[in-house]
Amino acid sequence: MPPEPQTVAALGEFALIDRLAAALAEVGAAAAPDLLGIGDDAAIWTPTPGTRAVITTDSLIAGIHFRLDWTSWRDLGHKALAVNLSDVAAMGARPRLATISLALTGAEPVTGLLDLYRGLGALAAAHGVVVAGGDIVASPERLGLHLTVVGESWPDADGALLTRDRARPGDLLAVSGPLGRSAAGLEMLLQSAEGHDVTASAVASPVHDLSADRRLPTTDFLAAHHRPTPRIAYGRALVAAGGRVAMDLSDGLFGDLAKICARSCVGAIIEEGSLPVPDAVRAAFPDEWLRLATRGGEDYELLFTVDAATLDRLRVLCAARELPPPAIIGVITAPPAAGPPIRLRRMDGREEPVGGGAFDHFGGE
Amino acid sequence: MPPEPQTVAALGEFALIDRLAAALAEVGAAAAPDLLGIGDDAAIWTPTPGTRAVITTDSLIAGIHFRLDWTSWRDLGHKALAVNLSDVAAMGARPRLATISLALTGAEPVTGLLDLYRGLGALAAAHGVVVAGGDIVASPERLGLHLTVVGESWPDADGALLTRDRARPGDLLAVSGPLGRSAAGLEMLLQSAEGHDVTASAVASPVHDLSADRRLPTTDFLAAHHRPTPRIAYGRALVAAGGRVAMDLSDGLFGDLAKICARSCVGAIIEEGSLPVPDAVRAAFPDEWLRLATRGGEDYELLFTVDAATLDRLRVLCAARELPPPAIIGVITAPPAAGPPIRLRRMDGREEPVGGGAFDHFGGE
Repeated sequence: MPPEPQTVAALGEFALIDRLAAALAEVGAAAAPDLLGIGDDAAIWTPTPGTRAVITTDSLIAGIHFRLDWTSWRDLGHKALAVNLSDVAAMGARPRLATISLALTGAEPVTGLLDLYRGLGALAAAHGVVVAGGDIVASPERLGLHLTVVGESWPDADGALLTRDRARPGDLLAVSGPLGRSAAGLEMLLQSAEGHDVTASAVASPVHDLSADRRLPTTDFLAAHHRPTPRIAYGRALVAAGGRVAMDLSDGLFGDLAKICARSCVGAIIEEGSLPVPDAVRAAFPDEWLRLATRGGEDYELLFTVDAATLDRLRVLCAARELPPPAIIGVITAPPAAGPPIRLRRMDGREEPVGGGAFDHFGGE
Repeated sequence: MPPEPQTVAALGEFALIDRLAAALAEVGAAAAPDLLGIGDDAAIWTPTPGTRAVITTDSLIAGIHFRLDWTSWRDLGHKALAVNLSDVAAMGARPRLATISLALTGAEPVTGLLDLYRGLGALAAAHGVVVAGGDIVASPERLGLHLTVVGESWPDADGALLTRDRARPGDLLAVSGPLGRSAAGLEMLLQSAEGHDVTASAVASPVHDLSADRRLPTTDFLAAHHRPTPRIAYGRALVAAGGRVAMDLSDGLFGDLAKICARSCVGAIIEEGSLPVPDAVRAAFPDEWLRLATRGGEDYELLFTVDAATLDRLRVLCAARELPPPAIIGVITAPPAAGPPIRLRRMDGREEPVGGGAFDHFGGE
């Protein structure tokens, strides 16, 4: 008997992606020079000289990315599109068109799917995104939503797009909004599930031990978790200000920043004292807020680097466009000679190296 | 207790699509005027005046669309991309870019996935299609492949694209190649599975009772089933000849033609004697060949309508470009006053109405 072949679970997601890219190159299917392929939020495609389009795809699987007993169908539709729009926003592009492939068990209530489309459609309509049909297939065990969104560079941006590979030592590191709210919402759902069955009514009303007793805005956490806001206008402002580097925070600050560091060959120092973590998150999770804000994921804020002049222009644009001001959370450095690229400067001045840890669907490293 | 909500399985796939489209319209997310949305092979998107792009999405789920004990990983990669390229070909467009979302159980052999990417990549490279990354997610029970392909109109075609809604009474009905080979391949696999376990070696070599005994080219059937050829050059020739109506044959001739009839508000007569069914299919399945050719599906030939002048130009172009000549299989008629839109004229001259029957993933009608 030959040895059992290595499985995906044993290899891990990120090593698999590298090897799949190599397999493509092997058969002559490498990415074209005008295209930023595997390894960024979305692909960039230049259909004809003078225009630039981006394309991104993201899947949500029941029991992995969402639980139907924790979310409403309408929120699920919103989120499925929002996470894709967020990838387009992170490129500084305008989303134009979405396709959706529904993998259905057949047992889904039709009313639920209609609500899902209403949630998805309302977000699409708000951003002028056309839902261009898609495919429906049978998936006996679980519901899956597979979306692809195409966007284009803003007409006033001369085709400029934001990527991950141009961060330079000395750049400032910033985020577009608060961190940790979505993870706090998920933590509440998990804690509730440990204590008792989470039902739709329990989720719809604030969780008792965290909100009724302490008067915390826990419904905000749940809203942040279930209905994230893609930062499309923010991405546009960043491009207009002259920004060049951004990504969206889906897997958590540390894991996502590590991707910018790897692609740009730089390091980074994050200031604990500068992290924009809402007081409500700190109060509800006094021992956990730092982990939630840095490793929790699903904030869907933009993480970006800017030089001082770009930052000045961005502040003016944010004020004019009624967007929140950028929150500076650290600086880009030269890559450290040894150890992980990211360090966290604690409140007491100590610098701690930050281990890896983007979310890996198969537990590999 | 309120009554149980209606399930997808009870409603059926096509009724579901109509209701999902209505739910989108309800929230203001209807298709834009420049976009052909739900109901064609691919969406058409006009990113900037003067260019036209198309986008299509198709999913393959293990146990539903393929069986890993019947197909090689490399063929699976080929087919997953081919069925999407076929949709782009059916619009008369040139495929440019593909994204792939892998839904993995974690137990897949890495060597298998690399072969899958090699098969997909080789077909992409052959057509100048860039594989632009995608997403990898966990899917505990079964492997799913979710592809999206973006194409654009040929530069020499002035943005002309092929749709389903412009067939006119008097047009000739034609296909780009033979019918029934893929269904014959599937039938062989099914018959083999009834008799004994189908192993990779049994599939790789001709099936004994059908080929060794009768000397039939059954490996051709299997190749047609496992490695369909997207008719991209044919779609281009059709556009260049002035054609306006086409689709690809994925669900079987009768079911797919019914979609053209519905969208164009026409009827059709198919001549049994004109169906291009290879002798090998007729010989291997003397009692079944007509069903395989008309309801079997997965031929991925183009089905199109042409007027006489377009047909003349197409014949010249096909000869010049070394493409097979179009096979005329019938005519488009006015919609019948009653009964189904399609009639089959048998060899003896009788006309039989043809019942519905596009493949519905959930068994609805």
